[in-house]
Amino acid sequence: MSAVLGPNSYGKSEVRLVKVDRGAERHELRDLTVAVALTGDFEAAHMRGDNTGLLATDTMRNTVYALARQHPIESPEAFAALLVEHFLQAGPSVTGARVRIVEHPWARVGSHPQAFEREAGGEHVAIVTGDGAGIAVQAGIDDLLVLKTSGSGWEGFEREQYTSLPETDDRIMATVVTALWDYRHAAEVGYGQTWAAARATVLGAFGDHYSPSVQFTLRRMGEAVIDAHPEIERVHFSLPNRHHLLFDLERFGLDNPNVVFQPTTEPYGLIEGTVERG
Amino acid sequence: MSAVLGPNSYGKSEVRLVKVDRGAERHELRDLTVAVALTGDFEAAHMRGDNTGLLATDTMRNTVYALARQHPIESPEAFAALLVEHFLQAGPSVTGARVRIVEHPWARVGSHPQAFEREAGGEHVAIVTGDGAGIAVQAGIDDLLVLKTSGSGWEGFEREQYTSLPETDDRIMATVVTALWDYRHAAEVGYGQTWAAARATVLGAFGDHYSPSVQFTLRRMGEAVIDAHPEIERVHFSLPNRHHLLFDLERFGLDNPNVVFQPTTEPYGLIEGTVERG
Amino acid sequence: MSAVLGPNSYGKSEVRLVKVDRGAERHELRDLTVAVALTGDFEAAHMRGDNTGLLATDTMRNTVYALARQHPIESPEAFAALLVEHFLQAGPSVTGARVRIVEHPWARVGSHPQAFEREAGGEHVAIVTGDGAGIAVQAGIDDLLVLKTSGSGWEGFEREQYTSLPETDDRIMATVVTALWDYRHAAEVGYGQTWAAARATVLGAFGDHYSPSVQFTLRRMGEAVIDAHPEIERVHFSLPNRHHLLFDLERFGLDNPNVVFQPTTEPYGLIEGTVERG
Amino acid sequence: MSAVLGPNSYGKSEVRLVKVDRGAERHELRDLTVAVALTGDFEAAHMRGDNTGLLATDTMRNTVYALARQHPIESPEAFAALLVEHFLQAGPSVTGARVRIVEHPWARVGSHPQAFEREAGGEHVAIVTGDGAGIAVQAGIDDLLVLKTSGSGWEGFEREQYTSLPETDDRIMATVVTALWDYRHAAEVGYGQTWAAARATVLGAFGDHYSPSVQFTLRRMGEAVIDAHPEIERVHFSLPNRHHLLFDLERFGLDNPNVVFQPTTEPYGLIEGTVERG
Repeated sequence: MSAVLGPNSYGKSEVRLVKVDRGAERHELRDLTVAVALTGDFEAAHMRGDNTGLLATDTMRNTVYALARQHPIESPEAFAALLVEHFLQAGPSVTGARVRIVEHPWARVGSHPQAFEREAGGEHVAIVTGDGAGIAVQAGIDDLLVLKTSGSGWEGFEREQYTSLPETDDRIMATVVTALWDYRHAAEVGYGQTWAAARATVLGAFGDHYSPSVQFTLRRMGEAVIDAHPEIERVHFSLPNRHHLLFDLERFGLDNPNVVFQPTTEPYGLIEGTVERG
Repeated sequence: MSAVLGPNSYGKSEVRLVKVDRGAERHELRDLTVAVALTGDFEAAHMRGDNTGLLATDTMRNTVYALARQHPIESPEAFAALLVEHFLQAGPSVTGARVRIVEHPWARVGSHPQAFEREAGGEHVAIVTGDGAGIAVQAGIDDLLVLKTSGSGWEGFEREQYTSLPETDDRIMATVVTALWDYRHAAEVGYGQTWAAARATVLGAFGDHYSPSVQFTLRRMGEAVIDAHPEIERVHFSLPNRHHLLFDLERFGLDNPNVVFQPTTEPYGLIEGTVERG
Repeated sequence: MSAVLGPNSYGKSEVRLVKVDRGAERHELRDLTVAVALTGDFEAAHMRGDNTGLLATDTMRNTVYALARQHPIESPEAFAALLVEHFLQAGPSVTGARVRIVEHPWARVGSHPQAFEREAGGEHVAIVTGDGAGIAVQAGIDDLLVLKTSGSGWEGFEREQYTSLPETDDRIMATVVTALWDYRHAAEVGYGQTWAAARATVLGAFGDHYSPSVQFTLRRMGEAVIDAHPEIERVHFSLPNRHHLLFDLERFGLDNPNVVFQPTTEPYGLIEGTVERG
Repeated sequence: MSAVLGPNSYGKSEVRLVKVDRGAERHELRDLTVAVALTGDFEAAHMRGDNTGLLATDTMRNTVYALARQHPIESPEAFAALLVEHFLQAGPSVTGARVRIVEHPWARVGSHPQAFEREAGGEHVAIVTGDGAGIAVQAGIDDLLVLKTSGSGWEGFEREQYTSLPETDDRIMATVVTALWDYRHAAEVGYGQTWAAARATVLGAFGDHYSPSVQFTLRRMGEAVIDAHPEIERVHFSLPNRHHLLFDLERFGLDNPNVVFQPTTEPYGLIEGTVERG
C-alpha cells in the first residue's frame, strides 16, 4: 500500500463549562469553552482499528468537569495548564497535549450577590501546549470590536490600472481585534492581571495616534504591548478592516462631511502581523 | 383564474447606518440597522408587472442615509418615526409604513474623544408603524444575556409517564432577554431615557426575587416595567431558558453541590408572555 | 397591583431528533428539529409560582423521543399532529398546542444501504396547531436558494428625489424562498407527496416567465401553487432580494455585458405576500 | 525601541463574485468567494506610515472582478493561479501571494437555460500560493455533511477513572468533511474533473468499511484518495464527530434498538490527520 499516515491529532472541542464559586457573601462565575487536542502514536487506531490505550474524547470531556470540581480555576491559563499536565499522563501513546480555553466575560448586576449580565470587551483566550518537557503558554483576546470616528487615513498608496479608491486623511477605522501573545517565563506570570493590563494597553494604543494604515496601528499596538509587558515575548494580531463607506449624498444635492457612513461586512481587508521583542 | 392576491408588503432590510456627530470636543456615534416595510395597493405590480408609482427598495435605502444627514438622530424611535412620516408620502398607493431600527451599543474608550468599543447590555430596538392617521411606537431590548447563579428553582410541576426531570430549589437560571413594549402617548415620551430606565428596571427585577419558574420571573419583570413606567402600556418578553445542567460527577466519586455546570444550547425552553396595564 | 398577565405560551424548542428505520435491505432516515408550544391557563405559575399541573419542557422533549419510538414518522406533518394530540391531553390547564417541525434533507450515497449525504433543495417545514376542537396544518419550505441569470428586470418604478437606481430589463434575480401554505381538509392530504409536488411547482414557476419584479414572481409562484394543488387554500412567501450588483468595470476600460456580478448580503429587499384561492 | 516587526501579511477577504457565461443556448454560472493575501517587505508602512508602493486591498477587490471579466474561469484553481501571478507583479515589495477561493455549488433547475438552485455536496476549495519561483496548488472540500446509520463502532478504548462511555459496535457516525489535498505537478492537473473524482472517492470510502473509529475512517478515506489519484501527494482531513446519542427510553419502559437518536452540536470530537504518498 502506498499511503502512509502523516501528522494527526484528536480531541474534544466546545466543552462548555460554568463554574460557580459560591462564596458566603457573593458568588463568582467562570464561563469557559474548552478544547483539548492530543498528539502521539495513534498509528494502531488509524491503520488497524485497534483502540487500545486510546482515551475517548468523551473521557476528555468528563475530565474537564471533574478537574474543574477538584481545583480552583484561577485563570483560563492556569486551568489549561492543569489539563495539559493531566492529559500528558494519559498513557504512553500520548506525547503532546494542547488545551485552548475561551473565557466569556460576565459583569455583576450592580452589587447583586448572584446576578450577572454578559459583558463586552472581548473574550479571554488561553492556549497551553505541553510535550512532557515543559509547557508553552499563550494568551489573547478574541472579538474585541473597536472603532475610531476620525484620526485615521489611507494615502500615498500604489495607484495602478485597477485602482479606484480615493485617498483620504479622515475615515472611520473599525476592526475586531484578535490578539495572541506568547509568555516568556510562563510559570511566573500573573495571568489574570496581565491579561487585563495587556487588553488595556491594546485599547489605549488603538487610539493614541493618527493612523495612516491598519498596518501602522497593528505595529503600534504590538509595540505598546511589548514595551509595557516584559513577560510577553511576541504578540500576533489579526485585524479585519471593517470598512465604513462614506455614503454618496452629492447626487441628492447633499454634502456629507464624514457624517453618514455605510458599514459593510464584505469584502473586508485583513491585516495580520507579529510584533516581537527585539 | 382562481388565485387572488392577499396581504402583502415590501421594503428594505439590513440598511446599516453609522452617523457621527462631530462635536468640537468629542464625537458621538449612532450605529443603526434599519428595516423599512410598506403596505398599500400594489396589485398592479403583482398582477400585471406594472411598477408605476412603486418606490424602489434602493430608494428606501438612499432615503435612510439622506434623512440621517438632514436631521439629528435623537433616538432610534424618533428617527423611525421620521422615516415612517416620509414614506407615507411616497405616493397614493402607499397606505402604511413600518420601520424597525436596532441600535448597536458602543462605549467610549476612557475619555477618548473619538475612540469607542462595542458594549454589551442588549441592543435598543424601536418599531414605529403609521397609516396616515397616526403612529404607534414600540421599543425594546434584544440580546440581553443575564444569569443568576442561585435563587431559582423548578418544583411542584406535573409528573407523568415521560417526566424524568428531578425537582430543584437551586439551579442556574440564564436567559437572553427579548423585550418589546408599547408606548401609550408616544409623542410625549423621552425615548432614550425611558429605554435606559426600562432596561434598568428589567435587570433589577430579574434579580430581586426567588424565581420558582421562568414564567414567574417573566411576569415579575413585566410588572416592574408597568409599575415603574406609566408611559408603557404593555410589555412582551421572549425568554429562552438556557439550561445549565449540573454535571454528574458522582460516578467519579465526586460531589457537585451546584458548582460545576454544563451550559447547553439545544434544546431550550421558550417562555413567552405579555404583561399589561390592568 | 396594576399589572395583569396577557397572552402567554411556553414550550421546548430545538429538540433534535434522528430516527432510523432499519429496514432489512436498507435504512431510511428522518432528521427533524421539533418545537413545541402550549397555551392555556398558566396564571397560577406566573402570579404565584404555583407549578401544579404544569408540564416541564424537559417532559416535552422526552415525549418527542418517546412518541418517535412508538409511532412511524410518515411525514413531519403527521408526526406534528400526533404530538399536538398528545399535548392537548396534558391536563386541564392546556387549551392549545402548536408543534413546528423542520425536516433536514438527506440523500442516499449512491445505492449504499446506510450512508447518506446532506441534500440541498430546501427544508420541509410543518406546523400543526390544535385547540381540542380540531387541528390546522401548514406546510412549507425554508432555505431554498434559487437564482436566475437573466429573464428578470426592474423598470417603470417611481423616480423621485432620492432615486438613483437605473432601470434594467436584464439582471440576476436571486432569493431564498420561504414558503408556507395552509391545507384545507388537512386530514386527507398526502403530506409527503404534496410537499414534494408543491416544491416542484414553486421551482418551475420561478423560472417560467420574464420577471418584471420580485412581486410579480411571488404572485406567479403562488398562483401556480393554488392552481396545481387543490388541497392548498393559501400560500405565503417571504422573498429576500439577494441583490447581485453589476460590477462597474468601465472605469478600467472594460465592458461588463451582464457577466461579472458582486453578490451582496446587506441591505436586501424583502418582498412578502400571500396568494389565496379566490 | 525594543519591539520589531515579525511575519506579516495583508489582503482582501470575502470578495464575492458571480460570473455568468451567457452561452447562446444556456447560461453557466460560477459563484466564488475569493480571499487574497500578500507577503513581502511592508516595513515602511508598519513602522513609518509610508504606504508607497502598497496595493490597496480595494484594488485587490477590483482586480478580482477585472480579471474575471477578461479571462475564462475554468476552475477555481486556475483562476486562483491567475490571480497569484498577477499579484506577484504588484511591485518590488511583494514577494509572495496566496489566493483562496471557495466555489459555491449550484444545480440547473431541470433543463432551464437560466435558472439554478443551490446544491449540496460540499464546497470546492482552491488555494494557490506563489513566490515568484513557482506555485503550489491545493484543492479540497468544505462543508460536506455525511452520516452512516450503522456500520460504525467505538470499542476497546482506554477505561480509566473519568471514563463513563459504554462501548458500542453499532452507532451513527456523522461528520462534516473538510478535506484539503496537495497536487504534485499542479500545472498538469485537470482541476475540475479531479476535484469531482476525489470527492466521489471520499464519499465512496466513507461508506465502504466497518468503522471502528473516526480515525480509521479518516485514514481509509485518505488512502483511497492517494490510491485513486496519482496527481495528489497528500490529503488532510478535519472531521468533527457529530455525536448522535442514543436517547434513553428505558426509564419510560421503552426499548431503543438504535432507532431514536439525539444529535448534538456541542461538545464534539475533532479528529484531524494527514495521509501521504509513501
